Amino acid sequence: MYRTHKNGELRLENLGQEVTLAGWVQKTRDKGFMIWVDLRDRYGITQLIFDGDRTPKEMMEKAKMLGREFVIQVKGEVIERVSKNANMPTGDIEILVKELTILNKSLVPPFTIEDETDGGDELRMKYRYLDIRRNSVKNNLIFRSKVAMETRKYLSGEGFIEVETPYLIKSTPEGARDFVVPSRMNAGQFYALPQSPQTFKQLLMVGGLDKYFQIVKCFRDEDLRADRQPEFTQIDCEMAFVEQEDILNAFEGLTRHLLKEVNGVEISKFPRMTYDDAMRKYGNDKPDIRFGMEFGELNAVAQHKDFGIFNTAELVVGISVPGGNVFTRKEIDGLIEFLKRPQVGASGMVYVRCNDDGTFKSSVDKFYDEADLKKWAEITGAKAGDLICVLSGVADKVRGQLSVLRMEMANRLGLRNPKEFAPLWVVDFPLLEWDEETKRFHAMHHPFTSPKPEDMGMLDTNPGKVRANAYDLVLNGNEIGGGSIRIHDKQTQALMFNHLGFTPEKAKEQFGFLMNAFEYGAPPHGGIAFGLDRLTAILGGQETIRDFIAFPKNNSGRDVMIDAPSQIDDEQLKELCLKINLPL
Amino acid sequence: MYRTHKNGELRLENLGQEVTLAGWVQKTRDKGFMIWVDLRDRYGITQLIFDGDRTPKEMMEKAKMLGREFVIQVKGEVIERVSKNANMPTGDIEILVKELTILNKSLVPPFTIEDETDGGDELRMKYRYLDIRRNSVKNNLIFRSKVAMETRKYLSGEGFIEVETPYLIKSTPEGARDFVVPSRMNAGQFYALPQSPQTFKQLLMVGGLDKYFQIVKCFRDEDLRADRQPEFTQIDCEMAFVEQEDILNAFEGLTRHLLKEVNGVEISKFPRMTYDDAMRKYGNDKPDIRFGMEFGELNAVAQHKDFGIFNTAELVVGISVPGGNVFTRKEIDGLIEFLKRPQVGASGMVYVRCNDDGTFKSSVDKFYDEADLKKWAEITGAKAGDLICVLSGVADKVRGQLSVLRMEMANRLGLRNPKEFAPLWVVDFPLLEWDEETKRFHAMHHPFTSPKPEDMGMLDTNPGKVRANAYDLVLNGNEIGGGSIRIHDKQTQALMFNHLGFTPEKAKEQFGFLMNAFEYGAPPHGGIAFGLDRLTAILGGQETIRDFIAFPKNNSGRDVMIDAPSQIDDEQLKELCLKINLPL
Repeated sequence: MYRTHKNGELRLENLGQEVTLAGWVQKTRDKGFMIWVDLRDRYGITQLIFDGDRTPKEMMEKAKMLGREFVIQVKGEVIERVSKNANMPTGDIEILVKELTILNKSLVPPFTIEDETDGGDELRMKYRYLDIRRNSVKNNLIFRSKVAMETRKYLSGEGFIEVETPYLIKSTPEGARDFVVPSRMNAGQFYALPQSPQTFKQLLMVGGLDKYFQIVKCFRDEDLRADRQPEFTQIDCEMAFVEQEDILNAFEGLTRHLLKEVNGVEISKFPRMTYDDAMRKYGNDKPDIRFGMEFGELNAVAQHKDFGIFNTAELVVGISVPGGNVFTRKEIDGLIEFLKRPQVGASGMVYVRCNDDGTFKSSVDKFYDEADLKKWAEITGAKAGDLICVLSGVADKVRGQLSVLRMEMANRLGLRNPKEFAPLWVVDFPLLEWDEETKRFHAMHHPFTSPKPEDMGMLDTNPGKVRANAYDLVLNGNEIGGGSIRIHDKQTQALMFNHLGFTPEKAKEQFGFLMNAFEYGAPPHGGIAFGLDRLTAILGGQETIRDFIAFPKNNSGRDVMIDAPSQIDDEQLKELCLKINLPL
Repeated sequence: MYRTHKNGELRLENLGQEVTLAGWVQKTRDKGFMIWVDLRDRYGITQLIFDGDRTPKEMMEKAKMLGREFVIQVKGEVIERVSKNANMPTGDIEILVKELTILNKSLVPPFTIEDETDGGDELRMKYRYLDIRRNSVKNNLIFRSKVAMETRKYLSGEGFIEVETPYLIKSTPEGARDFVVPSRMNAGQFYALPQSPQTFKQLLMVGGLDKYFQIVKCFRDEDLRADRQPEFTQIDCEMAFVEQEDILNAFEGLTRHLLKEVNGVEISKFPRMTYDDAMRKYGNDKPDIRFGMEFGELNAVAQHKDFGIFNTAELVVGISVPGGNVFTRKEIDGLIEFLKRPQVGASGMVYVRCNDDGTFKSSVDKFYDEADLKKWAEITGAKAGDLICVLSGVADKVRGQLSVLRMEMANRLGLRNPKEFAPLWVVDFPLLEWDEETKRFHAMHHPFTSPKPEDMGMLDTNPGKVRANAYDLVLNGNEIGGGSIRIHDKQTQALMFNHLGFTPEKAKEQFGFLMNAFEYGAPPHGGIAFGLDRLTAILGGQETIRDFIAFPKNNSGRDVMIDAPSQIDDEQLKELCLKINLPL
């Protein structure tokens, strides 16, 4: 028995007790005749005292040698502190040490084990096991486990069965790039790691399991953008005999449960918005609705004058930045530069200052008079003190650019309060999206998503216009999850594969098992998957998923702590019948 | 809304209600003027009735066309059955159908969807999605999810944090063969899939997380014996500041909780036995203690006569088979054949019949008299009516052979009651075991297991005798899990690697990160891992793990349903800088 108590639990009512504690030396204060040590474990900190009057000399000497992060065990008596510390739960007491055992020494750690550390990202990742000792990282991991546990409790309570689907599955070229696993027993053949358990969960519905969920790792071999991980975790769900409404209700219930249990926030009915509306109002299929700045379309009130840029634009659209009239000319020029960067790609920005006296001053005063600008203000909802920002161009592109501006403004104005939660269902996504590179339609969600029956007729005539029974849950401007009602009959699935450019042979080779399954009484079904990494980060009031992953990889897909990936033995390669063939 | 109720819930109190149900046609009975349909879903079966007097003719015609496994939706009224069925929960009522919708048709399934199916193993695996519709398989999956959920509830309640460790890690040649994953972003390098999260959970302890658990997939590329899977699931745990006793208590608590919540069985303190005792008493490190037949060592009472086979043997050892005297000569000859098979390898068997009148009759009457045999009976605990079976030879081998006989006897005598649960801790495992093939010692548990401090002195002089702080939990003769107290200082770990034949360079290359971590204040720690597949099967009263896995692989590691592994595109290989190099 290494300890009778943990380091967060002793209080005044324990006075006089003989206790045994163990943990890490957080810090020592050595006044010569008196030494204090802060002893830390997962649960908290307890102050130890070594006192020249009461502590044997040899133990004083030993205590003087304790360095940061030494692991020690002490026995001693709980005594009342002379100077109490109201900021820590154990701040009323300290331990007068009677026995001190050094369980393990420590080199000086490469960065400080404190909430605000002096360690940079690379160093923290290399010594992740030390980074995890810091409260901020440790608490994130505990928070994540709570989110996962509450998810399981809720879904189990609702009759969902957690089923483990396989990790060694079959590679399919549709979608993102697979990680593959060479098979030794089937030489020359490969498994793939799942990008999601999509087909398996559909087969579980064909198998009558009715309500499935799983918290499961998924894998995508993509070039990593910032804050993407090659392995990530999904809350994966599927239900049979359901319509879209049933699924939205079930997972709105889950999200509401999490917000309540994990964040103490109660939210009633989540608003819903069609994809088209989201794009029109926010230029974004995952709008952050914690704040306004809805788009105002200005074509009708901005294309009647001699301003060619607007007159030739497909769309003239603006937002009103609340209180934005305080921006200086220099700040506004900075914004315009920001919008003109290649990542955003705007050609410029027109702006209108809404003065306190109700007058307007715009960057296009040559073309538009006070009456025009008043109309712009009405449409964008601008009030005195605001700044109207107007972009123009090709509709799709200009909406995206204005969305970037809207988010930037919200960040600058502090409108994105991480303690405020604004969930939103975005529904009626398009079934297909055109890919310029491959010159064909791709499935916007995935090839198993059901078109809306009323739009089926347009599949041949206007495929881009066909809407799907597909939906996303958006939380604070982040896509938390998405799903769809699936196709459950072979004919529609074959039609869909055909529209995605699969030959019947290829479709059979890749998904024959699913098409077969559809011939044996597949029920109507649908589902959803939430990204646990992202969900946890957002609920935790942060946006960086890496901080909520115990052992994340860097942007080259490397684990710098264990140094993986790495070379393997020639013997291993030989057994797998593989040769490495590096380009010269 | 596809249904107002599920198929297991309607009762007499629902009489007169208009309900909507959906599900699969389990069977139809067509009496011409009256048609009954059993409608099935995950929750049960409800009887539908179509009645020539009350059902419109077109609907009667439609009902006649329903085949097995059609998916239908019906609206109708709950009415009282004329002839009730007490064997089913919904047996008092039936639904007089008023609307019938065929949601999906079905081909005739390749086997019957019933508890006792006519489908062979291969067919059932190929159509696993149909197999899962059978109650037996479905209930196993539901049972498994319950075991997992109760595990999580218990461990969370005890302060364990579930942490997800990475799947894309580093290959290490120690232990079983890794599955590897070529990295595209780091050409020529490979990740490995974890055989267990061993080093990561130790690093979490170094990181101060104190109590960790995870239900996690693990991977081993081994030639598959019957009922082994290349991917399997572990309940993986680790604790800091603990001794062996703390871990045994914690996981005895978990097991007791599962037995109670899942099986309704209450078991108090689990017995413990050293590895040496288990081998001596049962010839097996995972003895089934639901029944006796403990080994009796007979050297002292069997090597004083002229029987050369015994006299030259290292060990003469026997068991008393209760009631075994009923076996005929032919049956006993069969047993001897069974023992002589190469898989067992015994050279023969001596037996003693214990007659009802207290006399003995043995196969070695030429050498041993009544007084000798009486002593054998005393030592093996034989009573009148029993059969004493005696083997002799090299101690290790003969114990293994007698263990096989003991289990065979227990099976034949029906002593292995699957509803009875006999857990057992086996402790004090050897640290190392000699491997004849590689002519060196291997770690019996793994290279991170701590030797017992009192045995450390023998590491150089008699390595095979060094005991480890390692333990297994055995349930009904199956190893459910195992673990150990770990090494937590760099010196001992280096010594251990040295004894396992690692050069310092190789040790550093493979496990440098762990050795480094030990220099920054690693706490004493230890852990355990349970095999969830096996545990679930045993608790479920079965021994075949495949029946508790949703989508298992066959003995060649293939998923015959999705046909994986399979060939991948040349483009994929090229991106990975790999060439397939099949032997000619």
